[in-house]
Amino acid sequence: MKRTLGVCYYPEHWPEDLWPEDAARMVEAGLSWVRIGEFAWSRLEPSPGNLQLDWLDRAIKVLGNAGLKVILGTPTATPPRWMADKHPDMFARDAGGHVRGFGSRRHYCFSHQGYRAESRRITEILAKRYGANPHVAAWQTDNEYGCHDTVLSYSDAALAGFRDWLSQKYQSPDALNRAWGNIFWSMEYASFDEIGLPNLTVTEPNPAHVMDFRRYSSDQVVAFNRDQTEILRRHTDAPLIHNYMGRVTEFDHFDVGADLDIASWDSYPLGFLEDRMEDSDAHKRSFAQQGDPDFQAFHHDLYRAVGRGRWWIMEQQPGPVNWAPVNPAPLPGMCRLWAWEAFAHGAETVCYFRWRQAPFAQEQMHAGLLRPDSVAAPALGEAADVAREIAAMPDVGTVEAKVALIFDYPSNWAWEVQPQGSAFSYFRLVFETYRTLRSLGLDIDVVAPSGVLQRHKLVLAPGVFSGAQIPDDCRVILGPRCNSKTPDFKINASPIPGVTVSHVESFRADMPRALPDGGAMIHWQEHLETTLPVHETSAIGEAVLVGGRAMYLAAWLDFEALRRVFRTQCEACGITTVDLPEGLRLRRTQTHQFVFNYGRDPVSWRGQNIAPAGVYWTEL
Amino acid sequence: MKRTLGVCYYPEHWPEDLWPEDAARMVEAGLSWVRIGEFAWSRLEPSPGNLQLDWLDRAIKVLGNAGLKVILGTPTATPPRWMADKHPDMFARDAGGHVRGFGSRRHYCFSHQGYRAESRRITEILAKRYGANPHVAAWQTDNEYGCHDTVLSYSDAALAGFRDWLSQKYQSPDALNRAWGNIFWSMEYASFDEIGLPNLTVTEPNPAHVMDFRRYSSDQVVAFNRDQTEILRRHTDAPLIHNYMGRVTEFDHFDVGADLDIASWDSYPLGFLEDRMEDSDAHKRSFAQQGDPDFQAFHHDLYRAVGRGRWWIMEQQPGPVNWAPVNPAPLPGMCRLWAWEAFAHGAETVCYFRWRQAPFAQEQMHAGLLRPDSVAAPALGEAADVAREIAAMPDVGTVEAKVALIFDYPSNWAWEVQPQGSAFSYFRLVFETYRTLRSLGLDIDVVAPSGVLQRHKLVLAPGVFSGAQIPDDCRVILGPRCNSKTPDFKINASPIPGVTVSHVESFRADMPRALPDGGAMIHWQEHLETTLPVHETSAIGEAVLVGGRAMYLAAWLDFEALRRVFRTQCEACGITTVDLPEGLRLRRTQTHQFVFNYGRDPVSWRGQNIAPAGVYWTEL
Amino acid sequence: MKRTLGVCYYPEHWPEDLWPEDAARMVEAGLSWVRIGEFAWSRLEPSPGNLQLDWLDRAIKVLGNAGLKVILGTPTATPPRWMADKHPDMFARDAGGHVRGFGSRRHYCFSHQGYRAESRRITEILAKRYGANPHVAAWQTDNEYGCHDTVLSYSDAALAGFRDWLSQKYQSPDALNRAWGNIFWSMEYASFDEIGLPNLTVTEPNPAHVMDFRRYSSDQVVAFNRDQTEILRRHTDAPLIHNYMGRVTEFDHFDVGADLDIASWDSYPLGFLEDRMEDSDAHKRSFAQQGDPDFQAFHHDLYRAVGRGRWWIMEQQPGPVNWAPVNPAPLPGMCRLWAWEAFAHGAETVCYFRWRQAPFAQEQMHAGLLRPDSVAAPALGEAADVAREIAAMPDVGTVEAKVALIFDYPSNWAWEVQPQGSAFSYFRLVFETYRTLRSLGLDIDVVAPSGVLQRHKLVLAPGVFSGAQIPDDCRVILGPRCNSKTPDFKINASPIPGVTVSHVESFRADMPRALPDGGAMIHWQEHLETTLPVHETSAIGEAVLVGGRAMYLAAWLDFEALRRVFRTQCEACGITTVDLPEGLRLRRTQTHQFVFNYGRDPVSWRGQNIAPAGVYWTEL
Repeated sequence: MKRTLGVCYYPEHWPEDLWPEDAARMVEAGLSWVRIGEFAWSRLEPSPGNLQLDWLDRAIKVLGNAGLKVILGTPTATPPRWMADKHPDMFARDAGGHVRGFGSRRHYCFSHQGYRAESRRITEILAKRYGANPHVAAWQTDNEYGCHDTVLSYSDAALAGFRDWLSQKYQSPDALNRAWGNIFWSMEYASFDEIGLPNLTVTEPNPAHVMDFRRYSSDQVVAFNRDQTEILRRHTDAPLIHNYMGRVTEFDHFDVGADLDIASWDSYPLGFLEDRMEDSDAHKRSFAQQGDPDFQAFHHDLYRAVGRGRWWIMEQQPGPVNWAPVNPAPLPGMCRLWAWEAFAHGAETVCYFRWRQAPFAQEQMHAGLLRPDSVAAPALGEAADVAREIAAMPDVGTVEAKVALIFDYPSNWAWEVQPQGSAFSYFRLVFETYRTLRSLGLDIDVVAPSGVLQRHKLVLAPGVFSGAQIPDDCRVILGPRCNSKTPDFKINASPIPGVTVSHVESFRADMPRALPDGGAMIHWQEHLETTLPVHETSAIGEAVLVGGRAMYLAAWLDFEALRRVFRTQCEACGITTVDLPEGLRLRRTQTHQFVFNYGRDPVSWRGQNIAPAGVYWTEL
Repeated sequence: MKRTLGVCYYPEHWPEDLWPEDAARMVEAGLSWVRIGEFAWSRLEPSPGNLQLDWLDRAIKVLGNAGLKVILGTPTATPPRWMADKHPDMFARDAGGHVRGFGSRRHYCFSHQGYRAESRRITEILAKRYGANPHVAAWQTDNEYGCHDTVLSYSDAALAGFRDWLSQKYQSPDALNRAWGNIFWSMEYASFDEIGLPNLTVTEPNPAHVMDFRRYSSDQVVAFNRDQTEILRRHTDAPLIHNYMGRVTEFDHFDVGADLDIASWDSYPLGFLEDRMEDSDAHKRSFAQQGDPDFQAFHHDLYRAVGRGRWWIMEQQPGPVNWAPVNPAPLPGMCRLWAWEAFAHGAETVCYFRWRQAPFAQEQMHAGLLRPDSVAAPALGEAADVAREIAAMPDVGTVEAKVALIFDYPSNWAWEVQPQGSAFSYFRLVFETYRTLRSLGLDIDVVAPSGVLQRHKLVLAPGVFSGAQIPDDCRVILGPRCNSKTPDFKINASPIPGVTVSHVESFRADMPRALPDGGAMIHWQEHLETTLPVHETSAIGEAVLVGGRAMYLAAWLDFEALRRVFRTQCEACGITTVDLPEGLRLRRTQTHQFVFNYGRDPVSWRGQNIAPAGVYWTEL
Repeated sequence: MKRTLGVCYYPEHWPEDLWPEDAARMVEAGLSWVRIGEFAWSRLEPSPGNLQLDWLDRAIKVLGNAGLKVILGTPTATPPRWMADKHPDMFARDAGGHVRGFGSRRHYCFSHQGYRAESRRITEILAKRYGANPHVAAWQTDNEYGCHDTVLSYSDAALAGFRDWLSQKYQSPDALNRAWGNIFWSMEYASFDEIGLPNLTVTEPNPAHVMDFRRYSSDQVVAFNRDQTEILRRHTDAPLIHNYMGRVTEFDHFDVGADLDIASWDSYPLGFLEDRMEDSDAHKRSFAQQGDPDFQAFHHDLYRAVGRGRWWIMEQQPGPVNWAPVNPAPLPGMCRLWAWEAFAHGAETVCYFRWRQAPFAQEQMHAGLLRPDSVAAPALGEAADVAREIAAMPDVGTVEAKVALIFDYPSNWAWEVQPQGSAFSYFRLVFETYRTLRSLGLDIDVVAPSGVLQRHKLVLAPGVFSGAQIPDDCRVILGPRCNSKTPDFKINASPIPGVTVSHVESFRADMPRALPDGGAMIHWQEHLETTLPVHETSAIGEAVLVGGRAMYLAAWLDFEALRRVFRTQCEACGITTVDLPEGLRLRRTQTHQFVFNYGRDPVSWRGQNIAPAGVYWTEL
């Protein structure tokens, strides 16, 4: 695979006579790909059945003839206003019961069968017309599933669908009652039609009830996407892609990804830092114009797994965005650094979002590669720099990481359903594990529970709620809170053979429990009974890390303790670690080692002085 | 009365062949009581009219034959799912108008007459069948009235009931208009049918309107409970009990208690510390695994009054719970200490909640005396220790306290309706008074406004909104904010003869007003005109404490100032005080003095070294 | 014009035989005006059509005969309960869709045509009866438009009205689609009847959509008020007034004011400090019993412009109020100081609110000039002091300020719609500009964008979203964020000739960007391309202040930097500045200079020692 660049473009936003000039400038900047169409339904079908595709024909032709490859999006994330008259109940409802109506985007409920049919209809129309178009080299389904909290819907359509899903899963109400433990508070059902959605209850609903609703909701996203992929497959051989988001965990991306050829995601490092991370103000100040050093890398590694090795960035932040609490500009060089971090993690393509800043509507304050007046914005030059650099290093050869970190979407749902301590976040637990590993200079594969490979010498499995396996032939650390439940959301006290959890504690964030060898347990501690060797004990002698090749970690550890444990375990299985300076990060490909400086100051490392936003690489 | 222990048990959760073993182990641990049945309606009546009581017959028999006394609960806190079809409008509505539906517990509106009839029906069925059963030695009505904010409901049933209640109270709309001062903003009503519930108004509703709604809502709890007690009385001579909660103040417990024989409450010291106390993080850190040293004691003294001398703990925390922001384990020994603190306050029985941790449904992370795998949890041993200790000291002889502190539920409603300063909490005002008294080593009676006895030499009446009397023959301190209103929620400026409040101020929490003799006024100050002697003045010479035998305190005092005032007043009426070290608390019975160490460190006191969680007693 | 005092009075709250005594005491205290009637509809028309005006006749007569001039209020802010039966859909709905019902005040939707007719009907009844009454010397329309967030309503009436308003503005859906940029996310409309209100969307609605809704909503307030003024004009020559509030910005007060003769506002310095200002706790502690030194002055200057030179205080805080988070008493002297600050700014009349504290209903804890027991509260004496003082200095001669500061209501709406950084508040930006100017001892005219006069040597125009003109013959500083949009809410990158904004940044409040000459940029920076002279540059050389006579300021500056810039610019155009001590403020009339000490401590200034709450004046 070759490394390439691209951009997102909205021909429907601009006069047609500007298209050729735009296309020429894209090519001139070294871009290969252009994504179009995903919000254009109201122009493709201005009224029901009134198809107006000529303009799209022409746009594809102009772009394609200029030498660009087109990624064509299905427009289902923005159904036109007339759809709401055709399907008045197509909208999602929030947990408070309010309809989430027309006027922005993603205004549909995944469970609504009428809208599902509309989605298939427009997909088929586009697939038939463009499936064999030589310029259309890839397809994108919908846009950013789950963005704006749109996976969970409490609509009538969701209620009907959920009951049907439960009846298929459990076959009888009694089986469901037993599985959920409904006897607990006389919550037993005599019929599937008696079951409600788990919102608006007096106090918390049964966690098993909520967990099944989370599974059901994820399945609807999978089904919605599959509707489109099945149609597209019949008409095109081009690869099918969806553009996921950062830290959207409400549906199982591995399940959606199984129906697609390439995973892609939309990477907004500065917006995510302010909007989706719990880190301290001090941390956010340190990286305010660079983004967190690990947040993007984590998603790169995650989506590489979702794409079974093939992944892109479909939208790359090019300057200030419009949607975070504050929206500063990236440091000069970051739009280059972010692209190279992605390539170093195996990205085939990085597309910037968007070509020209739109001076109107919701995202008018979101930068593009061009300003609204068509003058080049700073990121255009950085993109052109990257284009030149990848011309000299075109091949994507992804390193075979020795460390694997399991990420499991259902575990995220489980601990949102039952955190037990207000600070317990599954995403956060996994991310802190990732950050610590990466601070040791490691390359990491983020994998589904079933994704561990022979090459993985060390596997981390924090917080997998149920069914985590112990892989053969590798060192594995499970826990904390791993395998603590059955699939039915009941307590399972034996996470690995030889270990019994007698009881668990969550505790105040301001009461860390110091460990004798440094660092501390934070938030969470399980008390173990074990016959296994103990590697780490608490200040009062409790087992904290136990086991042989398969180990169990009984607590959430802070950075210092986790780093110490990981260093020791890496050493034990022959993995080399380094102590990286603050803000510096490494990543290898099959052929090169890359060094990235996310700090605001130059860093000296192994004889190299690396500027802020600097990228430095050497051949391996 | 003898001191006894017990436990809460759910035979419907476990295989029937486990019951005899469970019963035997309970007896072996020294337990005398077992509470059952309160959440079992869906098994007692799986479909309307289809009664299935045989299993309960057998459970009672197994437990009783083992030597246990059964407390049988009416199951009305968890109506089965079919009830919602029979009475689709039975649910409460929250202040935003949302239905609080099926799926957890307490899903009924106290005002709903249809559900009230169902409650009577099932109560009568159980009363008839078990009223004379020799093993059923006590009854519990419903479960935790008011838990999960369920007293206030804005349903249609509540609206109809409220209008009827108002028509009976006021007889004519004009009388109501005059009482409420509805002329104020043209809020006058021509008919009772025009009156709405006091939610969803543009700005605050009339406080008199809200206050009557609070009274009405409390009355519905009383009526609901009385429905059951009237039936039970016809069929049983066993004592009737309800299990109240900590810091639930939405209904008048004295009113409910008047229809019962014994008050009990559910004591969760660690959960309450984190979930229901406004204290500083530093305070919460100090007592994170012990619970606040005074919160339980306050409720013990309160519910002793509610039970007219007879009171129990129906549910005692046995380990980590599942519902607070963080859920640590108690320090070793606390499950013993908490029981002894209760006994020292006159509890007849302490029941731990629950026998065996249920591995399923909402409370699966809530500890029991047994783990889900039936292994003894730490609290079982502590319970057995207590059982042995009370065998040596069986008699409950409650000390005759000399200090009384008035707690008045309507006052709590009044100041929630009209706090006037955001920090003004009636509960908090009373609790800080209690805490200060107890820090002086005092035994306290918490009493209703009508509950002052001859033996009380010093009476405290902070914040009683209306109608607080000055008892004969004792020293009494009223205020702040005492008698500041008429029953109609109008200003009364003369709280005691000789004192006029010219105006009041609430002020910033970060602007305490220092007192010349130490300590400060916080949150609240009334400006007095008085002909009475002045005992305490502000830095600028305002009267802060005035009066003779009956005194008026014009401000909310901080701990230091309050302690100084109380020390002086105790001395004046011959009550001995001591300066207790941080975390140490005293309590006397008729025969013994108990010392409790709530601190994390050992404390030396009067020659004794008392360990953390230590209990030490001496004969008087 | 003469300076006068007045008071707000509710004869309907008190026994009729108290009226003559009250009137006599008002006159005795030196009051000239008494406002009545604005909440009395339920007594004027107890049932539909049943008019009962005799009591009002008598009240006016008693007050008038005592020598008082009456301001008569239309009672439309508190429609009686029967109105809700006549017009069940008359209520506003909040953004969540909840009806904001009966039970307090302002329970009507400005868009409801049925209620608009009722408002005209009762206005006409009162206008006919009292329009020529010699005692009725002024009229007040309604009461505090916009208080309790009542401008924006999401009712059916608002939806219908909005569609109609849009159809008149745009004439065709296509024109609207183009203006709003609805192509952006396929949001195009085929008919005006398809357009919804901009609430309950999945993510943010189109800012152009919201902006038009804000304009529409403001227009409804204007129309509602005009309904009344047109009727009143036909029956009376007395001046027409409305009493605006502090920091209510949801409707354009200049538009409402154009239909009235005098602007007035309700000034609650202590309540506003705690409830409506974002300042630090330290600042709030410094002025807890005095109010912010500039908040009232800003509104005085603003409403002087709204009233085209004629303005009053209709309600002046007389002691503790009931509605702020904390409600302390003003320092002795503040009720005098506040009145003099108003008079120094050109107020003709200051009315205290209210005569006697009402012991019932919502505002029972709100002080009056009398206590509920009719004893004089402290403010009565201060009012009498002011009365004596103005007798010696009766003339209002407003100084001709040389500095103008533009305040533009649509700009406030625009930046609420699209803050782009969470700290960006238009009100705050303007207010901080005002505060800085005032700290330099300047007299300021706050003006509408069209209100700049020849005498204004220096004009400030921060944050005017669109269409700000550069006045002739004066020095003007536009920006930050000035003229950054077209009226259609699209980006305009050229705020003044010679300046192009290449891009903008919002940034963390804890990351100020220090300026080389002192102070810092905070919250917001625009990056300029300019051909104009640069007066101020950032630490890395970016242009921060550029231009000639017309300058553009590219950033939000902190107090220190702004003060430096303003000092320099004042010097350049011959305006003298002074460095005032903390808490001291100046204001001139045509004849006098006033010095006000808002601090808690005495201040020495130019040889004068000025006590806390002290007012000191000298002839110019």
